[in-house]
Amino acid sequence: MSLTELREQVYEANLKLVDYGLVTLTWGNVSGIDRTEGLVVIKPSGIDYDVMTPDDMVVIDMEGKPVEGKWRPSSDTPTHLELYKAFPEIGGIAHTHSNFATIFAQAEMEIPCFGTTHADHFYGNIPLTRVLTKSEVQEAYERFTGSVIIERFANIDPLNVPGVLVASHAPFAWGKTSDEAVKNSFVLERVAEMALGTLSLKPNCEPIENYVLDKHYFRKHGTSAYYGQLKNN
Amino acid sequence: MSLTELREQVYEANLKLVDYGLVTLTWGNVSGIDRTEGLVVIKPSGIDYDVMTPDDMVVIDMEGKPVEGKWRPSSDTPTHLELYKAFPEIGGIAHTHSNFATIFAQAEMEIPCFGTTHADHFYGNIPLTRVLTKSEVQEAYERFTGSVIIERFANIDPLNVPGVLVASHAPFAWGKTSDEAVKNSFVLERVAEMALGTLSLKPNCEPIENYVLDKHYFRKHGTSAYYGQLKNN
Amino acid sequence: MSLTELREQVYEANLKLVDYGLVTLTWGNVSGIDRTEGLVVIKPSGIDYDVMTPDDMVVIDMEGKPVEGKWRPSSDTPTHLELYKAFPEIGGIAHTHSNFATIFAQAEMEIPCFGTTHADHFYGNIPLTRVLTKSEVQEAYERFTGSVIIERFANIDPLNVPGVLVASHAPFAWGKTSDEAVKNSFVLERVAEMALGTLSLKPNCEPIENYVLDKHYFRKHGTSAYYGQLKNN
Amino acid sequence: MSLTELREQVYEANLKLVDYGLVTLTWGNVSGIDRTEGLVVIKPSGIDYDVMTPDDMVVIDMEGKPVEGKWRPSSDTPTHLELYKAFPEIGGIAHTHSNFATIFAQAEMEIPCFGTTHADHFYGNIPLTRVLTKSEVQEAYERFTGSVIIERFANIDPLNVPGVLVASHAPFAWGKTSDEAVKNSFVLERVAEMALGTLSLKPNCEPIENYVLDKHYFRKHGTSAYYGQLKNN
Repeated sequence: MSLTELREQVYEANLKLVDYGLVTLTWGNVSGIDRTEGLVVIKPSGIDYDVMTPDDMVVIDMEGKPVEGKWRPSSDTPTHLELYKAFPEIGGIAHTHSNFATIFAQAEMEIPCFGTTHADHFYGNIPLTRVLTKSEVQEAYERFTGSVIIERFANIDPLNVPGVLVASHAPFAWGKTSDEAVKNSFVLERVAEMALGTLSLKPNCEPIENYVLDKHYFRKHGTSAYYGQLKNN
Repeated sequence: MSLTELREQVYEANLKLVDYGLVTLTWGNVSGIDRTEGLVVIKPSGIDYDVMTPDDMVVIDMEGKPVEGKWRPSSDTPTHLELYKAFPEIGGIAHTHSNFATIFAQAEMEIPCFGTTHADHFYGNIPLTRVLTKSEVQEAYERFTGSVIIERFANIDPLNVPGVLVASHAPFAWGKTSDEAVKNSFVLERVAEMALGTLSLKPNCEPIENYVLDKHYFRKHGTSAYYGQLKNN
Repeated sequence: MSLTELREQVYEANLKLVDYGLVTLTWGNVSGIDRTEGLVVIKPSGIDYDVMTPDDMVVIDMEGKPVEGKWRPSSDTPTHLELYKAFPEIGGIAHTHSNFATIFAQAEMEIPCFGTTHADHFYGNIPLTRVLTKSEVQEAYERFTGSVIIERFANIDPLNVPGVLVASHAPFAWGKTSDEAVKNSFVLERVAEMALGTLSLKPNCEPIENYVLDKHYFRKHGTSAYYGQLKNN
Repeated sequence: MSLTELREQVYEANLKLVDYGLVTLTWGNVSGIDRTEGLVVIKPSGIDYDVMTPDDMVVIDMEGKPVEGKWRPSSDTPTHLELYKAFPEIGGIAHTHSNFATIFAQAEMEIPCFGTTHADHFYGNIPLTRVLTKSEVQEAYERFTGSVIIERFANIDPLNVPGVLVASHAPFAWGKTSDEAVKNSFVLERVAEMALGTLSLKPNCEPIENYVLDKHYFRKHGTSAYYGQLKNN
């Protein structure tokens, strides 16, 4: 895929955040990476979605140095870069302040897997990072936001659990492409909404059985998946 | 009704799920049955609603063998087939992960009949199935999902209570046609939403009196119904 | 106003229920009265809003006898007629199963006046009726639904408190015209939504002080009102 | 900016309240001030948003005396004037009865800063005024509504915390322009919605650490801000 195509893809993915109702004002951003060239395309900072064009996307290298584009990149860029470096399998990242996921992040609670909607997309709890320390916040806030996510994923495969709640902040989600990252942001928000309702009905609700989690997750993912159409269709 | 008409009807019913706000992404499916021919028409698996056409609907026989259509049928097909076999009165089935009904399914709580909106459409509680056992999940997950529904309806007339919550999963609803199945999915969701609010206001709220339930249900259903227009109008 | 105009007005008021998001499926109805002629115009029973025309409105006399129109009137007609007889000041009635007002009706809780949004439109609590007795339900359900409302309003001026919650059922609202009845249904729903949230934040929340209630209500209503424009504008 | 431009701006800001879903019926108003001329432009009282034009905006002087316009100004005008007098830095004010902010006002609870969405826009709690006394309500209700806000802001910079909850009533927000006031009303509503959910998940949730609050607020505001684009872009 050319850089022009990636820029177009990242632009479309940013607009999809709005269509899905995950972003209002300028509270969100999506990026995509070209692993071969080592270049990242990301939303410009503070630009309204309804005036943005593909040309407004900013291209940077893996150290955040501007390569193309007339705008400053999203202020969350250092977080994206940390994640791309630590998770070589991912190709896109989406960050939002979507209502229900942010509620869990603010309450500093992981989202337990209460049902098959969750199990179909996330293999277990949606993890929560720790709060950043004072010195992390003051030294390099956005970069350390990436670090605490990576720390939390020490024993988790980021493609099995393609999203996280940053404590007191909001969710990040990712995927093989920027489009998949946006879709996972949407799923995370729906799952958070249902979990909030479930806990309001039954405060001590237990997560689903592991054998149901395994069944649902691997019905859609991995070599024995049978959901959707065969890839050679 | 010809198979072409049924395919058109099932297609329209699938789109109506989206219009009613009951389905996002590909989290839902509707089927319809031609009892004379023993053929079931169902949504293809994992196809987006906005690109789907009537021709994409899949036709299968009662054992799930493909008869017409270029796609794989919905992965929930074995559940639909079990229900059609056990409930000869029904002609359509809808499955969604609609927000409020799924919340009750996740909390593993039946929806009590708290008011006349519920009583107008469901004669008593919305039932909840048991959780599937490990061997049921591993052996034939979707087929046993049908079995636990049928088990729960041992003493319930499926046309008096045209919907169910599958524990830790989500609702299924049905009716004489696929269109009626979708309408009942919608009613189930609205009733679940109101029940969640009612329980948040009054956690020990009691269901309505039986004489109110009888009045409302039979005002709309059965031989003494007087709601709506006379059928020969 | 001619009967044709009243029919048009009642038709528009019924559509406004849908626009305001107060009604889905056929769960609602609005009527208007011509006091000079003793005729009531009301929505037909079970007809979809999107195919309805002004000509589908049904005209009945004060005993419910059909005068004009090809359809059966709403099954709630006897409730409307009781209210028109008991409350000579009102000219329109709206009945819905709107989500939040119905939640309070199901929980059998009055809606306390927690703020000025409520005080601007309803002078005090939104009242709740008692549950109908078994014999009332069986003998003449819809007529006695009117009776329990009237009973509850023994000491309340229906124009100061233009709405009510029928226990285990849903709200009715009214006004000088069918349009005002719909507007009051909308206000009742918004007030119920805010009250549910208020009680979730603060379960023992107290209603506002009487002097604030007086100020807000009489700022908009009565001879010393100063909200809006002068009538001769 | 000419008075014509200000009138246009205030008109657009009033419509934006509706677009943002913060206002229904006529429950809201926005004003803007021309500090040089000492003139305030404000929405007329009780006029529907969908028929309003820029010419319907009312121009008054700082004592509330009409200067231009055929309508009465919003009944909340004296509140706006008090705020303009006390807070010389502000150029626009918006008042709504938006659902979640009003819920906190009704529960008489400040909105704690639970996360970075809040910290990005409001430097600390959203303050709550005291309830007006009986004599204040009876003597000059709308003017004293301004007074209790100003009293509450004795030690708060109104540009650092551009909004407030009036007890038992609803929010007011402001900014350097009427457009900014509307945007801050929107942020206040989103923050209130998330805080309500956060408290429902975790009733004793603590506000974020001061060092996170400082980082987020000053990342977007003040001389060391680095969010968005450089002003000379």
